[in-house]
Amino acid sequence: MRPQDVIARKRDGKSLTDGEIASFIDGLTHGSWADYQITAMVMAMILRGLNRREQNSITRGMLFSGSVMDFSDIDAPKADKHSTGGVGDKTSLIIAPILAACGIAVPMISGRGLGHTGGTLDKLESIPGYSVRLPFKQIKSVMRACGLALVGQTKEIAPADRKLYSLRDATATVPYIPLIVASIMSKKLAEGLDALVLDVKTGSGAFIQKQTESIKLAKALCETGRAFKVNTQALVTDMSQPLGQFSGNALEVYECLKILRGEATSAMLPTLELSVELSANLLVQCKIDRSIDAARTRIEKVLASGEALERFRRNIELQGGDASVCDKPQTLLTKGIRKIDMVADSSGYLVAVDTLAVGNSICELGGGRVKAEDSVDHAVGWESSVKIGDRLKRGDVVGTIYARNTASANAISENMRTAYKIAAESPKPTRLIKAKV
Amino acid sequence: MRPQDVIARKRDGKSLTDGEIASFIDGLTHGSWADYQITAMVMAMILRGLNRREQNSITRGMLFSGSVMDFSDIDAPKADKHSTGGVGDKTSLIIAPILAACGIAVPMISGRGLGHTGGTLDKLESIPGYSVRLPFKQIKSVMRACGLALVGQTKEIAPADRKLYSLRDATATVPYIPLIVASIMSKKLAEGLDALVLDVKTGSGAFIQKQTESIKLAKALCETGRAFKVNTQALVTDMSQPLGQFSGNALEVYECLKILRGEATSAMLPTLELSVELSANLLVQCKIDRSIDAARTRIEKVLASGEALERFRRNIELQGGDASVCDKPQTLLTKGIRKIDMVADSSGYLVAVDTLAVGNSICELGGGRVKAEDSVDHAVGWESSVKIGDRLKRGDVVGTIYARNTASANAISENMRTAYKIAAESPKPTRLIKAKV
Repeated sequence: MRPQDVIARKRDGKSLTDGEIASFIDGLTHGSWADYQITAMVMAMILRGLNRREQNSITRGMLFSGSVMDFSDIDAPKADKHSTGGVGDKTSLIIAPILAACGIAVPMISGRGLGHTGGTLDKLESIPGYSVRLPFKQIKSVMRACGLALVGQTKEIAPADRKLYSLRDATATVPYIPLIVASIMSKKLAEGLDALVLDVKTGSGAFIQKQTESIKLAKALCETGRAFKVNTQALVTDMSQPLGQFSGNALEVYECLKILRGEATSAMLPTLELSVELSANLLVQCKIDRSIDAARTRIEKVLASGEALERFRRNIELQGGDASVCDKPQTLLTKGIRKIDMVADSSGYLVAVDTLAVGNSICELGGGRVKAEDSVDHAVGWESSVKIGDRLKRGDVVGTIYARNTASANAISENMRTAYKIAAESPKPTRLIKAKV
Repeated sequence: MRPQDVIARKRDGKSLTDGEIASFIDGLTHGSWADYQITAMVMAMILRGLNRREQNSITRGMLFSGSVMDFSDIDAPKADKHSTGGVGDKTSLIIAPILAACGIAVPMISGRGLGHTGGTLDKLESIPGYSVRLPFKQIKSVMRACGLALVGQTKEIAPADRKLYSLRDATATVPYIPLIVASIMSKKLAEGLDALVLDVKTGSGAFIQKQTESIKLAKALCETGRAFKVNTQALVTDMSQPLGQFSGNALEVYECLKILRGEATSAMLPTLELSVELSANLLVQCKIDRSIDAARTRIEKVLASGEALERFRRNIELQGGDASVCDKPQTLLTKGIRKIDMVADSSGYLVAVDTLAVGNSICELGGGRVKAEDSVDHAVGWESSVKIGDRLKRGDVVGTIYARNTASANAISENMRTAYKIAAESPKPTRLIKAKV
């Protein structure tokens, strides 16, 4: 089967057979298709469309292009959460310890930040010594010991997806639901899960901004998960403003530790609320609790008792990190960082935030990556002091830039200022959880 | 301007600005776009479409990615013919000498065969010693001396087209009119012509088989030529069966020499007729004759007097070839070649020929290329003994395979037999020239 003949079929709007998709996957995995053939095919897929069967066939192909983890010798139910990414979106570091404390094993494979969105691996690496690169055997032993492992994608997991993903950003072929589903689900299904909850973001800082599109993505993800016999649910959640108080790698770990320690500020409450909701869903999906309310009560207990924090402490130790941050979260905050307050230049209500601009500004400070090979400055970021709907007076602080120096702060201050829209009329209240799929 | 941003605009169906097209052309010429970005863009162009302005902007970009020949110091009008390609399509070797004998300078840049279609360069190389690789200075001196130069594309001509062309075949992005137009016209416009006639093939052996599509291509080619101030016309001509008597490199040169010598067999008459029509068009376009009829008379004269043959003889000498083939065309026919007659297995009329299958079979004999780097066997080919509409009896010869050995002939004989369709009812008569644009 020649690549060009398969490409021609999709170019002409035909639906691809499983055999043709197998040829494409082989091309990705073993190099039998040239990069320029892969990208021509992907563009044809986007413009001609993929049906649900083709989407699942691509997912299956990418999944089985690599190893699937086998945790059958661990009795606990295996579960994970995946978020489509946003700004200040740090719930993984709260959810995984909570679930572990509730008797669920969490083999969480995460990614790095790219563009305006942060990545769990980068956040974890702001803990001194913490290693996210573990071989499979160690992932298993860490998970057995503390209930959670927080690691990066290994070479063995979905190599076809890794190849495809490396080409999509540079060819404007990222925003297409069936390919997003195949990419996310091929990696998550490789974790050998019983249950999966998806946090599909929507709004100005989300990868897909329109709520109707976010709901479509959530449905497509759930259908594919269920087609592979994994109990899958999705929450569509608000990303119209940065989540919680802090955005930026070390700052976000600080926020998580404060929450796990029961010391959440009011600005951190949305982070806590979303973490609890996603965790509660998984507890019900895993049949540990019969209702979301019962699950919430269990979660409150493991937070109040410090059991969740202890799980995270044990995990940090096992993954080589300095667990003293659990006792003194403030040690994560780099000394000598410049803090520059941004103030409102008019009075009124905060009606909207250009969260994409906020994320890009943090990226520009050094807190994120423009290209995959860039390094990340863990210390920098943004503190959100106000939320949509808050009433402001001219001169009130809307937030604080955490920068290496005044020059880099000044470079983004105008973008930060215009990202926060103040108007005379109060906006419609925003809800953190928009829909459940 | 990042390639992915330009690709995204076409992906979303926007028409590209001249600046965006310039970025794409620069990417092709200087490598600022990766191959995988180029092919994603081309697929988006095909599926979202290019308007006439974009088509001409790409043509202009590819044209000026390289050198444009300057023949302003040659007084004679400069003209050329280009064919979209077919099986047995050998008219270049007749038209160029005719035009030269009529006072037109012909700087003909041709290509090699690929797939089922032959290429002028391969045909010429079956003349011992003939060189198709001449630097620009020598093209000019050869043309000045004999009126015609028959050469391959040099590195200096339209490098952006050469790059793009090398990626299109392997990515199923060839059959799209605006890109075909840009590819053909960027090279032809680099010849510094006053007039151009296009032979757009239609039917089972043509690259575009449907006549309505061929007419569309002819119109698009002419409009672009005229937009660049070159007097451009097109004939849409029959490729529902191999043209003339022979298909295959040396065999076709033999046929051309027989015609130039005034020794055409009846099976060669369509080749002669088409050559005369295309030449006559150019004589009128170049204002050498006022009417097609007057031009035909002039052409008959230069053929009958041997002047056209003498131009070709002189050209062969100047391009390093053995000109004795002009006196003894039969020396082109390789000794020891196996000739195997194919006979009709039923009686009736020849109603259709699968000319693509005929071309592919010749290719399989070694007479053409599957991949661009393949070498070509000049000796092999196919002799067509019958034409559509001919009445046949079972056992009549429909044609003859010229092969290196019986095994290679046998390998294609079944395909050749089924390519010739015999039926009880006589077909509609086919016309050689279908339309003039």
